[in-house]
Amino acid sequence: MNPEILRVVLVSPRNPLNIGAAARAMSNLGFSHLRLVNPYDVAFREAKSAVGAGHVLEAAGEFGSVSEAVADCSLVIGTTAAGPRELHHPVRRLEYGARLIRKHSCTSPVAVLFGSEKYGLSNDDMSHCHWLMRVPTREGHRSMNLGQSVAVCLYELIRDSRVAVREPARLRAAASVELERVTELLIGMLGCSGYVNPRTRTSTENKVRRLVRRLELSARDAEVWLGMLRQIRWKMDHNSGEDQHQERA
Amino acid sequence: MNPEILRVVLVSPRNPLNIGAAARAMSNLGFSHLRLVNPYDVAFREAKSAVGAGHVLEAAGEFGSVSEAVADCSLVIGTTAAGPRELHHPVRRLEYGARLIRKHSCTSPVAVLFGSEKYGLSNDDMSHCHWLMRVPTREGHRSMNLGQSVAVCLYELIRDSRVAVREPARLRAAASVELERVTELLIGMLGCSGYVNPRTRTSTENKVRRLVRRLELSARDAEVWLGMLRQIRWKMDHNSGEDQHQERA
Repeated sequence: MNPEILRVVLVSPRNPLNIGAAARAMSNLGFSHLRLVNPYDVAFREAKSAVGAGHVLEAAGEFGSVSEAVADCSLVIGTTAAGPRELHHPVRRLEYGARLIRKHSCTSPVAVLFGSEKYGLSNDDMSHCHWLMRVPTREGHRSMNLGQSVAVCLYELIRDSRVAVREPARLRAAASVELERVTELLIGMLGCSGYVNPRTRTSTENKVRRLVRRLELSARDAEVWLGMLRQIRWKMDHNSGEDQHQERA
Repeated sequence: MNPEILRVVLVSPRNPLNIGAAARAMSNLGFSHLRLVNPYDVAFREAKSAVGAGHVLEAAGEFGSVSEAVADCSLVIGTTAAGPRELHHPVRRLEYGARLIRKHSCTSPVAVLFGSEKYGLSNDDMSHCHWLMRVPTREGHRSMNLGQSVAVCLYELIRDSRVAVREPARLRAAASVELERVTELLIGMLGCSGYVNPRTRTSTENKVRRLVRRLELSARDAEVWLGMLRQIRWKMDHNSGEDQHQERA
């Protein structure tokens, strides 16, 4: 979604630290429009926990009522810790609610409301909402910290479900020729050390080959292993008892 | 995933409030095994922000090193705010990393490490990890608050992607017969009020019918609308100028 259309609306927040935490999460996750309805502490703009979120706090709008704070919004969502049966509104789990918000293909603002730390949104606040959304917290401990709730909701809005399926930028896996270099070196060292029983030699070599494949080495790591094994091999071949170190080219 | 297998490991956390916030998010999202490596403040168990998370804090284990804290874990994931290019480890976006953790079909514990508020995980801490994971924060403001970072990571682990696709428990939509009752009542009131031009009567009726369908009323709301419209209709029919209220059966 375009983060520019979202308005994070904190209704009667009491603790400036929480306002700061909400602003920080917004900044972290790319959102910038904060609105406050009757904040308890006028000094919220100096909220200490707002590391790097000064721009969000400075630009925050203050409103006297929920009605004014959402006047220009075409979709208004309330957040709640309560279960579906306790409320008059449809309550959607965050996963689904965020999807609906992303699908709301309007260029006019969308508001997400968060209630006060102690009481959440009032019935009056909620009556301005099209529907409600809840983080799937467990039955025995539903109510989240305000700053954490904002962080989780915004994260769900920006998360990319395509990324979950495939890894985007993976290291190049080592090619067989590179794995075979490691394998041969290791087999040579094992032979030299007396590990290989001549009668089961082929079987042992195959075992080592499979063992190396299961490491799923990246090309870069295969290179590092080669370097380490070569150095050890060199020491095996020049075992004069001295603690000498090979000069590597 | 089974939340029982997860160990949340806070490495050198400095602020008891953040330890409390982490514990609260754990409790909210159904996790209970917290481990602390060299916490700065021994009084962390009384952390104030840990509303409802006392059981998590009381049961928390304390360790002298990362190595000891993850000794029994078969998968160890570090969290970081840094981008992939700055580190020696594979860094996976949270969406993908959480998927790998869920797929890790082992019954032995899985550890997720969070570094200190100021410095994050050290290179030494990270060397104990199989790979790293990051919340997809924006380039200009990567570092999240510790408690919020824990909340977002745990949320991603428990979120249900199936829920995102279809709405689980929806109110029963009004049936056509119910919508038609609303439609007829409204058409009658409009006729009575002089809104309907007799020459375009059919067209107007169809317009009203479509208008009512677009409301996508639930059966319950259709019932409420019917009650309100009937009351208004009654007043129209008994307009004696008195401010009388119908006794409803």
